[in-house]
Amino acid sequence: MSTAEETADDGMQPWAEVTPDAARRLLVAAVEAFAERGYHATTTRDIAGRAGMSPAALYIHYKTKEELLHRISRIGHEKALEVLRTAAKGEGSAAERLAEAVASFVRWHAAQHTIARVVQYELDALGPESRAEIIALRRQVDAEARGIIEDGVAAGEFDVPDVRGTTLAVLSLCIDVARWFRVDGPRTPDEVGALYADLVLRMVGARPQPSSTAAQT
Amino acid sequence: MSTAEETADDGMQPWAEVTPDAARRLLVAAVEAFAERGYHATTTRDIAGRAGMSPAALYIHYKTKEELLHRISRIGHEKALEVLRTAAKGEGSAAERLAEAVASFVRWHAAQHTIARVVQYELDALGPESRAEIIALRRQVDAEARGIIEDGVAAGEFDVPDVRGTTLAVLSLCIDVARWFRVDGPRTPDEVGALYADLVLRMVGARPQPSSTAAQT
Repeated sequence: MSTAEETADDGMQPWAEVTPDAARRLLVAAVEAFAERGYHATTTRDIAGRAGMSPAALYIHYKTKEELLHRISRIGHEKALEVLRTAAKGEGSAAERLAEAVASFVRWHAAQHTIARVVQYELDALGPESRAEIIALRRQVDAEARGIIEDGVAAGEFDVPDVRGTTLAVLSLCIDVARWFRVDGPRTPDEVGALYADLVLRMVGARPQPSSTAAQT
Repeated sequence: MSTAEETADDGMQPWAEVTPDAARRLLVAAVEAFAERGYHATTTRDIAGRAGMSPAALYIHYKTKEELLHRISRIGHEKALEVLRTAAKGEGSAAERLAEAVASFVRWHAAQHTIARVVQYELDALGPESRAEIIALRRQVDAEARGIIEDGVAAGEFDVPDVRGTTLAVLSLCIDVARWFRVDGPRTPDEVGALYADLVLRMVGARPQPSSTAAQT
């Protein structure tokens, strides 16, 4: 599913896989409308209007407003998971992989903050089945991050008394970037990513030079 | 304004100062409605209904829906600031004050997660004047947290290359507790507060025993 170009781009083209064009335009319009007014205050008529289409044209692609939210939430979570998984599967020490995972996860939440806000704040608006699917994706995100931290603990690189709680805090810190990040703010997504990678290595008590630690054993 | 009882209670009675009773009941109803359906999808009629009152009775206390949101946001921010300020002004080393500030700020966001979500997610719905007032309160919250971190750096207790960025991250970590905290989840507000105090001391590179460092100089 993911091309080399997408990986190089941190998966920053969230809707690239959505076809045809009209279905993609409707998703983009729905994200904007939900972000501005909230899910419950938005009608399918509003969304169709933003996309320059008639309500009847919308129904060809999406049967309900909830289907639009579900699609947005699923793609948003899948892309965030892909970004994290790519970093987790990379080469290097646990510290290097954790730093890369945090930096790329933060860049995603900064660059795609509008999508991320909708995905995070409107979770309760999903129906039971859609919600269960999204929660399963969130468990996978959690497992990827926890896996790197567990690797670091096992290798003696990290000192983490509470792995589950620390994983939760690390992901929470990264996700909340979507709430406060402003495009006209003082820091770029790359700068926030670099700062957060450093802070997270401190949170897990990473040894400054893991390679020299390995040499001692 | 704050009594000894409120301080002991971490300022956890957010609406205690709102009188008369009807005005307080309307605020509580508005928080619930905004949290469930979003600000834009909620009408003053919905809010009055939830409070068991008529729309006409609501207008005696609040002229507009925005006035309700502004009141909620102001009280929410003032209480959060009070919680943080009490900890910042306490006795002890910078590490002890930072740990207490984080623990109590987290307890507030966990216990009052419904208010905190409304306050954080509906900021854009405020008019320009209300918004400016809230942003000024947020700057004070930021300054309190930054002040403790600067104290720790000046005393040689903390190692923080980027004080502004680290302050932002620490507050963001605490605020996001309101998004994910569930009353039926595995951790109490106290437990999350204790975990986060430890993680934040790691983020600022706090020396394990600041008193022995002081003895060396």
